[in-house]
Amino acid sequence: MTLKTKRAENYPAWYQCVVSEADMAENSVSPGCMVIKPWGYGIWERIRDLMDEEFRNTDHENAYFPMFIPISFFRKEAEHVEGFAKEMAVVTHSRLAQKDGTLQPDGALEEPLIVRPTSETIIADSFSKWVQSYRDLPVLINQWANVVRWEMRPRLFLRTREFLWQEGHTAHASAEEAEAETKQMLEVYRKTSEEFLAMPVIQGIKPEYDKFPGAVDTYCIEAMMQDGKALQAGTSHFLGQNFARSANISFINKENKPEFAYTTSWGVSTRLIGGVIMTHADDEGMVVPPRIAPYQVVIVPVLKKAEDEENVMAYINTLVRELKTKTPFGEKIRVKIDKRLKQSVDKFWEWTRKGAPLVLEIGPRDVQNNGLVLKNRLNVGQKEVLSKEELLSSVEKRLENIQRHLFERAKARMDLNIRSDIQTPEEFRAYFGKANEWIEDGKVGKVAFVRGKWNGKAETEEILKELKISIRCLPFDQTGTKGKCLLSGEDATIDAIYARSY
Amino acid sequence: MTLKTKRAENYPAWYQCVVSEADMAENSVSPGCMVIKPWGYGIWERIRDLMDEEFRNTDHENAYFPMFIPISFFRKEAEHVEGFAKEMAVVTHSRLAQKDGTLQPDGALEEPLIVRPTSETIIADSFSKWVQSYRDLPVLINQWANVVRWEMRPRLFLRTREFLWQEGHTAHASAEEAEAETKQMLEVYRKTSEEFLAMPVIQGIKPEYDKFPGAVDTYCIEAMMQDGKALQAGTSHFLGQNFARSANISFINKENKPEFAYTTSWGVSTRLIGGVIMTHADDEGMVVPPRIAPYQVVIVPVLKKAEDEENVMAYINTLVRELKTKTPFGEKIRVKIDKRLKQSVDKFWEWTRKGAPLVLEIGPRDVQNNGLVLKNRLNVGQKEVLSKEELLSSVEKRLENIQRHLFERAKARMDLNIRSDIQTPEEFRAYFGKANEWIEDGKVGKVAFVRGKWNGKAETEEILKELKISIRCLPFDQTGTKGKCLLSGEDATIDAIYARSY
Repeated sequence: MTLKTKRAENYPAWYQCVVSEADMAENSVSPGCMVIKPWGYGIWERIRDLMDEEFRNTDHENAYFPMFIPISFFRKEAEHVEGFAKEMAVVTHSRLAQKDGTLQPDGALEEPLIVRPTSETIIADSFSKWVQSYRDLPVLINQWANVVRWEMRPRLFLRTREFLWQEGHTAHASAEEAEAETKQMLEVYRKTSEEFLAMPVIQGIKPEYDKFPGAVDTYCIEAMMQDGKALQAGTSHFLGQNFARSANISFINKENKPEFAYTTSWGVSTRLIGGVIMTHADDEGMVVPPRIAPYQVVIVPVLKKAEDEENVMAYINTLVRELKTKTPFGEKIRVKIDKRLKQSVDKFWEWTRKGAPLVLEIGPRDVQNNGLVLKNRLNVGQKEVLSKEELLSSVEKRLENIQRHLFERAKARMDLNIRSDIQTPEEFRAYFGKANEWIEDGKVGKVAFVRGKWNGKAETEEILKELKISIRCLPFDQTGTKGKCLLSGEDATIDAIYARSY
Repeated sequence: MTLKTKRAENYPAWYQCVVSEADMAENSVSPGCMVIKPWGYGIWERIRDLMDEEFRNTDHENAYFPMFIPISFFRKEAEHVEGFAKEMAVVTHSRLAQKDGTLQPDGALEEPLIVRPTSETIIADSFSKWVQSYRDLPVLINQWANVVRWEMRPRLFLRTREFLWQEGHTAHASAEEAEAETKQMLEVYRKTSEEFLAMPVIQGIKPEYDKFPGAVDTYCIEAMMQDGKALQAGTSHFLGQNFARSANISFINKENKPEFAYTTSWGVSTRLIGGVIMTHADDEGMVVPPRIAPYQVVIVPVLKKAEDEENVMAYINTLVRELKTKTPFGEKIRVKIDKRLKQSVDKFWEWTRKGAPLVLEIGPRDVQNNGLVLKNRLNVGQKEVLSKEELLSSVEKRLENIQRHLFERAKARMDLNIRSDIQTPEEFRAYFGKANEWIEDGKVGKVAFVRGKWNGKAETEEILKELKISIRCLPFDQTGTKGKCLLSGEDATIDAIYARSY
């Protein structure tokens, strides 16, 4: 029972179909905003909890800052505001009142407020009060929050006007320490993406012209979606003293001299969920990696006659108690009994479309045999008949295998589809100018990444725009070899990743 | 080393002093908003996690809805908007642009958006799409989110323009089921307050004129602060079919007829943290109940000479590993080693002002003796010298004792200060008209609760306003006896709780 729209037929429509059939999110009457439904939000909560532990292990603490930022804060930060001014929600009034027979905004504010698109400016203001001496540094803060960017072409999870994210903000006594922090957090993002989301990424640095507004350096992780486009999955910014200077985060250093602090910021958002969908989902619907699945094992009772219920439910309840002693990935297992008044076959297909890793079907015959039927999301259409003991002794390994398989499958696909044989601007244009090759399961698809040389000049951005591609990053594993810039044909040594992107 | 401002001297100044010295929150440059600092936010995260488990155990699921609500949604709900119109943040523009040489709001929206003061209207819109048949009911949703109410006299945690909360929203097939849900969630709030926050409460129903705007019935829990004022700590609303009718949440019932659903909503906010402060803090600073303490045990290394460090830290690290096998309240213990470059005595006082339940001081001599010095937040100035084994075998019990003691102390204080001997309007006026009695530790304080009769008539609200008090609730444990209304002197049977309030 595959989805109405197949991935190979119409990729964007397939994506919408997966989100909707998995019941993860929906468009809202609030223009450009989304409702994140329980299955989608449960995935986000899992990502949050796993990342929170990484943040704690690297000595960061959570805090919460106001979402309204006075407009004057942006007026001080020319480069920063330039990057966000075109997509800001502005609060101008503080009440409603009846006017001309209808409720209208009233109580104009003296100073308009911006709903945070990101919090560097307002957090820097707090840091300026918290930091006096080098002994107060580093300050290592993370915030989980909603943010707003007035997107004109919204798309569930990938681009909505309001979205959820985490934003780390830190201040340090030296540039070296701040740079090390920036890279440490990029590594946390790589780990999150590859180990928790099973989504392989390329790590690198953004070209100068594509940095975060106000940053000295922007590092990123880039993932490859199943249509060969790139998704920026997380960014980590070394801000130098730029924000410290405009917010006056200054401290007395060890030499007893005043100095501006060195700050960083880094963030990932609910966009990651869009990345997970486009990395793992298939024509049967969503596939959720076990580490971030709200439920890893779903139990569907198969009850044809009412008199079976007591017996079957007692057996299932005992099984759940036994299952709950299991700890896949060293964590408590997450098990759900689906007791709804629906046909068991309909429930099975719902959980398939939602991408729950393992579904167990249990009816009166299974109770008699002390067994169950197991279905694995990666092998839709197949089933295994197991004894209870076989399940209990293998369930951790089964979940861990699914997680590993998902990563390996995605990694193989990415590696296969990074072209490094394109050497000249002519070949490059020919490649991105037409429908491009994309290899999976021996079939040819649409487009892939190209790894090749770049001369490092901002002027080449025009050529990228013309071809509707971008430099995703300058990957960390630079070869240093000489070659020709794929855009200009000039001599170049920098390796770049070129791709279409979301 | 007590606080600059004592509780008995100036209660409001003492409150600010506790919040600031415990480093829990601060006022922001964003007018009327607060910065929740790591220690305050950590307490909120603990409350969130504990409540989340209660919500899950009662079959609720978390989801997330847009924070921007089109103004037209409020225009449909006359009674609801009436209650919130005077304190709404209104978004009217979607970008900034240079005008007259400075950045100004630009791109006026066709329809202004309200930043949610509460989400009944927008969530009801989603429910109307999710619900078709009685088989789709109940819908049991919770949201953790920020909300905005344009308070004119903000106060940290108690009243800020933006605050954090959870809001439950449910839809049911019958009024009875929805009413049962409303009461069930009030019981979750009672449990949260009494068992997790150690804050005793009175449960009851609000008078008709003080209900949530748009509700049929509003239930509440009310707590007594250390100045004798009441704090509304949580509310649970039975909304009848009011919101279902205006949002068209209709379903085909078992009799195959269309019917509007019955909805509920219920919420608690970061205001609870204000309640915890005013229930437990003292002249030494904050006191955090162990169940919601970000750290339950803080270890302060006492290092006079650099050469002791390795030895002492090795001992502490072993101790932490052993401590982490302990499970007070059936949960993982939360332990922190304070390694900062500060004097150990300063660290001790910091943790005292933050209200960490247990502090362990460990120096070279303790390492030699295989022991430690334990300090309990409830006995500032005292210390116990323990062997490591004595600590390990008693730490769970010690934390559980602190939790119980805090609740019992607060409960005794509340019970002592509910006056039920005031029988006539004259006595009542005399009581609330002057500085009133308040009993603690044998000393007479300012004001208390009065439990007495009320005639149930809305007109009596004028007398309450004049005396600057309110009816906090009509408690669940009604006696049904006859008496005189304390406001009007008329015959009355309803029991009410009268008090000053936050």
